[in-house]
Amino acid sequence: MTTHTEFPAIGYAGRIEALRDRAEERGFDGVLVSDLTNVRWLTGFTGSNGKVVVRGAGATLVTDGRYRDRAADELAAAGVDCDVEVGFTHAEQHELLVRAAGGLDQIGAEATSLTHRQWTTIAADVPIEPVGGLVSEGRRRKDAGEIARIEFACRCADAALAEVAPMLGDGLTEADVRMELEYRMRRHGADGPSYDTIVASGPEHAARPHHHASHRTIVEGDTVVIDVGALVDGYHSDMTRSYVVGEPTDEQLEIYEFLRIVQQAGLDAVRADLGARELDAACRDLIAEGGYADWFIHSTGHGVGLLIHEDPFASTASTQTLVAGDVVTVEPGLYRVGFGGFRIEDLVEVTSNGCRVLTESPKDAPCPPSPPTT
Amino acid sequence: MTTHTEFPAIGYAGRIEALRDRAEERGFDGVLVSDLTNVRWLTGFTGSNGKVVVRGAGATLVTDGRYRDRAADELAAAGVDCDVEVGFTHAEQHELLVRAAGGLDQIGAEATSLTHRQWTTIAADVPIEPVGGLVSEGRRRKDAGEIARIEFACRCADAALAEVAPMLGDGLTEADVRMELEYRMRRHGADGPSYDTIVASGPEHAARPHHHASHRTIVEGDTVVIDVGALVDGYHSDMTRSYVVGEPTDEQLEIYEFLRIVQQAGLDAVRADLGARELDAACRDLIAEGGYADWFIHSTGHGVGLLIHEDPFASTASTQTLVAGDVVTVEPGLYRVGFGGFRIEDLVEVTSNGCRVLTESPKDAPCPPSPPTT
Repeated sequence: MTTHTEFPAIGYAGRIEALRDRAEERGFDGVLVSDLTNVRWLTGFTGSNGKVVVRGAGATLVTDGRYRDRAADELAAAGVDCDVEVGFTHAEQHELLVRAAGGLDQIGAEATSLTHRQWTTIAADVPIEPVGGLVSEGRRRKDAGEIARIEFACRCADAALAEVAPMLGDGLTEADVRMELEYRMRRHGADGPSYDTIVASGPEHAARPHHHASHRTIVEGDTVVIDVGALVDGYHSDMTRSYVVGEPTDEQLEIYEFLRIVQQAGLDAVRADLGARELDAACRDLIAEGGYADWFIHSTGHGVGLLIHEDPFASTASTQTLVAGDVVTVEPGLYRVGFGGFRIEDLVEVTSNGCRVLTESPKDAPCPPSPPTT
Repeated sequence: MTTHTEFPAIGYAGRIEALRDRAEERGFDGVLVSDLTNVRWLTGFTGSNGKVVVRGAGATLVTDGRYRDRAADELAAAGVDCDVEVGFTHAEQHELLVRAAGGLDQIGAEATSLTHRQWTTIAADVPIEPVGGLVSEGRRRKDAGEIARIEFACRCADAALAEVAPMLGDGLTEADVRMELEYRMRRHGADGPSYDTIVASGPEHAARPHHHASHRTIVEGDTVVIDVGALVDGYHSDMTRSYVVGEPTDEQLEIYEFLRIVQQAGLDAVRADLGARELDAACRDLIAEGGYADWFIHSTGHGVGLLIHEDPFASTASTQTLVAGDVVTVEPGLYRVGFGGFRIEDLVEVTSNGCRVLTESPKDAPCPPSPPTT
């Protein structure tokens, strides 16, 4: 039942070298990469246990026996120049790490990824020092292979939502809608949901931005917020659409229309070199001018890639600047207990002079579309 | 479509007190609980950010603004005597933690749960020292409320497998079978899958114990290993059944029959006070006597509860002893590339003189059962 798709290759080659250069600029002669998302981005390795030592010449992945063949296969497929060393016990893996780091004087390591126990064990024999962002900086600019996976993930979520949105009001619970969405994303080729699908309905639930789908039955008059994405070959999509079940009231229509204008203003603002805080302000200021300041209780967007939430973050506190190749959400929302809520969220690729919207689901009106005709 | 079930309450009351006693025995006048599974088990709080300080008198949960109302509601529902303090920034949360730990001299903290960055930040102002297992020891003995949730999760997986196993050989891929299982578990009332469902088929894939469901089409003659569990109100189930598509060969029948005897020997061995290593040996020794020693390439079992893998672990290296109330898997398997593989896994509740098997799916023969007649 599932469609399997071939994607363009991801450009792993050069990532280790670029990391080495960034580390040298900061005075490190080596890097210990332990965050598994960073390990995957750097080498293509997808196992649940792996650490990479990057040296002036060469790099070594240390993993355990379960991944002996898979690690070698994945690194070869990625075209990455990195040795694989397999330790069957924690002690063996530690020894291999010490050997791979031999001769290095100052190794940048991820203090936010290693547990305190892991850090103290490694630091006893290896000269590690905390360094932040060395890899995640590199992860921001998505290449064509990464964009293709994210776009296909967007298509899976679009297709599932097109099938399920017309079922709102058929007596389904929030959990039923979530189940149908996740099932149908897989049928359209996704590996699974990108995160726990949010289906929030009615005057209380839809007013909570991070509501989990409950056993509440969706009824006429409800506002419904559906936040759904697909996972494809490690890459995520993220989208929100909002609906009214039955005929919308004037107030519902007015607030939805206002939010649509706000979200469009966010999309219009996006371009490389814009401060992420300015992106947030593009939506937030408009909302405040409209008199809805206290209806908007989260930030405007975030990066999406191998993680569903990653750099950059567009909030009032952000100090980051958008770059071409960032994939970010634009997702203002308006919430009030008693009314319910709406959120409209698109995923976009940042370009030098604007953005390319990757989400295709309709958002003109708060009404479920008609069932797809196929 | 989903059945919502009422379960007996989980006995949260007394857990904080018992933890305080265990800590005092080890010379600590306080405990900092940061592992989120431990926080949930101790207080009923299910949010993604929370730390609990347990003192001689009283306890405090520190969390962020998202969870202000939910934390108070969940702790009240759990009947737990613990204050809630909300900090809107990391700095505020840190201050609240320092205040909650005021006057304490020696606080046991989880060095395997806090990142190195978190540990050093906290340790600058709070006298924490690494301590292992204080909470996870307590988590082993499941109470009636916990068992009820795990049993219902077993029923969801049993029901889904009864529907899907007869579809093996209908031209489905491994990924299709996984999707159907996960969809149907939800329809039977599960919150979701307990872990990434394993569907491993044929001479190569079924020979890998931790294979991920791929786009391979399952065909006549294949051995098929299906490892599937449901998640219900935070609690997991875990089960494996193995099949042959079409008419089994004599070799397939013989190896399956042998494994069934091995697995029964494992079940027969389980009782409180048995060493977890002896449980492993009950299966492993029999397999070796049968001449299949190198076909069994993983351990025999593990605990299941709020985590899919938790204490105790039944392997050749285990030093733990089973206690009444442990919920553990018994899951020997036989694998060889070219042949494929079989694994049979039941989930059991350990009792003083044996065990109660929670899994109900048939395992007499390696043939898919007939479709359920409803």
